[in-house]
Amino acid sequence: MVRLCLVVRHSASYKYISGPDHSQHFISFYSKNSIAVYKNGFPMEYRSWFYCIEGCGETYPLNEIIYRCRACGGLLDVAHDMDSLRVRGAAGWMRLFDERYRRTEYPYGSSVWGKKEWVCPAVDDQHVVSIYEGGSNLFWAERLGEELGLGDLWVKQCGNNHTGSFKDLGMTVLVSMVNQMIEEGQDIRGIACASTGDTSASLAAYCASAGIPAIVFLPRDKVSVTQLIQPISHGALTLSLDTDFDGCMEIVQQVAESEGIYLANSMNSLRLEGQKTIGIEICQQFDWEVPDLIIIPGGNLGNVSALGKGFLMMEELGLIDKRPRIVCAQAARANPLYQSYLKGFDEYEPIHAESTVASAIQIGNPVSYKRAVRVLKAFDGKVEQATEDEIANASARGDLTGLYNCPHTGVALAALFKMVEQGEIRSTDRVIIISTANGLKFTDFKVGYHEDRLDGVNVRHGQSPLELPARYDDVVRAIDRVLS
Amino acid sequence: MVRLCLVVRHSASYKYISGPDHSQHFISFYSKNSIAVYKNGFPMEYRSWFYCIEGCGETYPLNEIIYRCRACGGLLDVAHDMDSLRVRGAAGWMRLFDERYRRTEYPYGSSVWGKKEWVCPAVDDQHVVSIYEGGSNLFWAERLGEELGLGDLWVKQCGNNHTGSFKDLGMTVLVSMVNQMIEEGQDIRGIACASTGDTSASLAAYCASAGIPAIVFLPRDKVSVTQLIQPISHGALTLSLDTDFDGCMEIVQQVAESEGIYLANSMNSLRLEGQKTIGIEICQQFDWEVPDLIIIPGGNLGNVSALGKGFLMMEELGLIDKRPRIVCAQAARANPLYQSYLKGFDEYEPIHAESTVASAIQIGNPVSYKRAVRVLKAFDGKVEQATEDEIANASARGDLTGLYNCPHTGVALAALFKMVEQGEIRSTDRVIIISTANGLKFTDFKVGYHEDRLDGVNVRHGQSPLELPARYDDVVRAIDRVLS
Repeated sequence: MVRLCLVVRHSASYKYISGPDHSQHFISFYSKNSIAVYKNGFPMEYRSWFYCIEGCGETYPLNEIIYRCRACGGLLDVAHDMDSLRVRGAAGWMRLFDERYRRTEYPYGSSVWGKKEWVCPAVDDQHVVSIYEGGSNLFWAERLGEELGLGDLWVKQCGNNHTGSFKDLGMTVLVSMVNQMIEEGQDIRGIACASTGDTSASLAAYCASAGIPAIVFLPRDKVSVTQLIQPISHGALTLSLDTDFDGCMEIVQQVAESEGIYLANSMNSLRLEGQKTIGIEICQQFDWEVPDLIIIPGGNLGNVSALGKGFLMMEELGLIDKRPRIVCAQAARANPLYQSYLKGFDEYEPIHAESTVASAIQIGNPVSYKRAVRVLKAFDGKVEQATEDEIANASARGDLTGLYNCPHTGVALAALFKMVEQGEIRSTDRVIIISTANGLKFTDFKVGYHEDRLDGVNVRHGQSPLELPARYDDVVRAIDRVLS
Repeated sequence: MVRLCLVVRHSASYKYISGPDHSQHFISFYSKNSIAVYKNGFPMEYRSWFYCIEGCGETYPLNEIIYRCRACGGLLDVAHDMDSLRVRGAAGWMRLFDERYRRTEYPYGSSVWGKKEWVCPAVDDQHVVSIYEGGSNLFWAERLGEELGLGDLWVKQCGNNHTGSFKDLGMTVLVSMVNQMIEEGQDIRGIACASTGDTSASLAAYCASAGIPAIVFLPRDKVSVTQLIQPISHGALTLSLDTDFDGCMEIVQQVAESEGIYLANSMNSLRLEGQKTIGIEICQQFDWEVPDLIIIPGGNLGNVSALGKGFLMMEELGLIDKRPRIVCAQAARANPLYQSYLKGFDEYEPIHAESTVASAIQIGNPVSYKRAVRVLKAFDGKVEQATEDEIANASARGDLTGLYNCPHTGVALAALFKMVEQGEIRSTDRVIIISTANGLKFTDFKVGYHEDRLDGVNVRHGQSPLELPARYDDVVRAIDRVLS
């Protein structure tokens, strides 16, 4: 018979508490901040594995180098042993996560690793590569909310992570897993990706912290030192290949297979395990209350999938008993999900994504389309789209109220404005906008807006310096004019 | 007779604890996270005020619009009633600060306002303008430390604040105080500064959040949309005056006096109260242990002054019983403090600061010189300097190990490297580098470095993309060459 033991050790004395099955339980505090669940005298193991999302039944260990199902070619997701997780109890999880949150015990102070048992229990603490990701501010958008008639509007500042975007939440999981695999003796010589943006920046920083080589493969016309300054600064080996993106991806796959290079591309679902903590953290920051509506920008659709996954996990383990509505916002110039949504998700066609200021979500054939649709269907979901004009103006309008976010936040804000106009949001609703990157990464976009140089954008909130002679009267008159 | 009452109310019952003077004490929890100290039945008031640092005895309330002593023209600092603060006891303060840290009760989750009683108790909670400042990562510089033979090297990421620099720590205090003054009925029409850098960005963001007009005064040749994109985006009124910096300052002073504009310049010491929490937070992040050495870049010298102030306060209230060594690092091209240090601080001469990549500390006549010297003398202090070559190379070297910091961090890193070479740091010392701003604000500097375009810099850690034909063999050969 399995005897589950949880002991509360306080001041060197043990305390028995009653567990969910009314048997005696025994929790041991390894340290101030980690509670171990014992089973038959041994610490509970929380198991996770890859499984094929097409339902063909294939599973693989997380430390296997594999990106697609061997049987049917489907994508892989990470599954967790929910039975073991259920033992602790919802209140126990909430308390554990709260105790660890932003605290001093490495790596549990990270808001991703503070939820380690739900994210990636397979990695030993000493192999975790963490840069204190998560725990970002939920900006209370008081003034913007007032303008919209919303009293409870917040913007989640995922750009307040080490490399300036939400990518850190996932990259810590992937790089930690690879670090463990290397320590276990696997011959992995480096980690590669083919990205010009946030992904390569995040990968390069985590690899540099861990001392694992990072390799960025890109088509030649996508490479400039300015564009890639983050991975370049972190010492990533940046390969500028004389081909287009497809040609580039072909070489990446070949090299990965034969040369012991691990791929950190959008098919690798380890990162989604870290990214799913966004939703858990949001609830945590509201003392475990569920918001009414979350609007998240979407390109490759990994993030909206992860957002849903986090909520489903909380629901399954009893931490919450209702779901937020989830709205995915796309750029009109890169809107395959939106077009499918208009057909009730009954049809889907990849498109050729056009150039958009929301560069990180300029994707015509999102890898996580199926995952995203499943989430949207489960969360009373909706998809909105925004034109270049709407994106840029929404972004600027947000900045005037204290925000300083990326254009992708502008996409989400534009969706918010539409929903408000269409009367789809109650004034008392708690609304969260997910901001995916730091505005400091988008100086060109913001300067372009205020200098009225953006294509297709009719500037409505432009600001510019006021040139004046250095005379007291002129200055006072200008101030009076503006302040009245 | 004064009866001090502190009651611990837990689960609706009151508990008496013994206080520092062994009388019965009574603490009442207003809420989960705030403990009020009662005196004769009324909540303890923590008083703070401005006083003249020249020792002439003048004092002023914090809600008075004043920047210099009326009697002698000296600078003003903020003083706190240490007797009232002493009542709680060191353990009580540590517990209070820890309970609030990054938690959900506004504004105490902010690491500045979580220490409100020490920072600015005069502001009512509902008038605080906070954007969750502080609580930034202490980056464990494991790899850089290994290179240097240091096992306990950390870099405090003050760039992980809302506007990308440490300025937010102080600006929240100033803007909150002004917000309170406006709510109290004072006729303040806006807040002004004359800065092209982090200060104007921070001021503009906090003002935008609060709905208070921000005004930035600058000489015409210092104004470009790119340089000022943060305040411009936040809607600050940016006045580009046809004069030089001195002429600009003259008009600022005039306008401030007559037009009800509050000055957020470097003479205003309210910001130092927020900035001093850096040191307190660092100790907090080490479970209240004091590091051995802190290296901080210095320009106007407010930050090093504030750093010292935080430690002195902790010492006076019994939280710590030793002091770190504090080293201030200057750019060689803007090194008035360093030159004075070489003369044992017996002489001081302002200089004309030359252009340096460490632009934020390009100051020839630092406002807080006297404050800084007092701190350095009290903290076994030292001043180091770094050339452009040393700054840029140190910065790049740090980035290769996962950091992504501003050139000012490069100044501090360069100072660290010198001290290591000179054998001034033990391998077991806990060393903290204060990074003052986010590297994302310094793309030009980093691109300039890796493209070898920086004046006076002999690039030693330059990285660049590798151009290759899109052929498998060429790619593999390149990878092998680099990874071996």
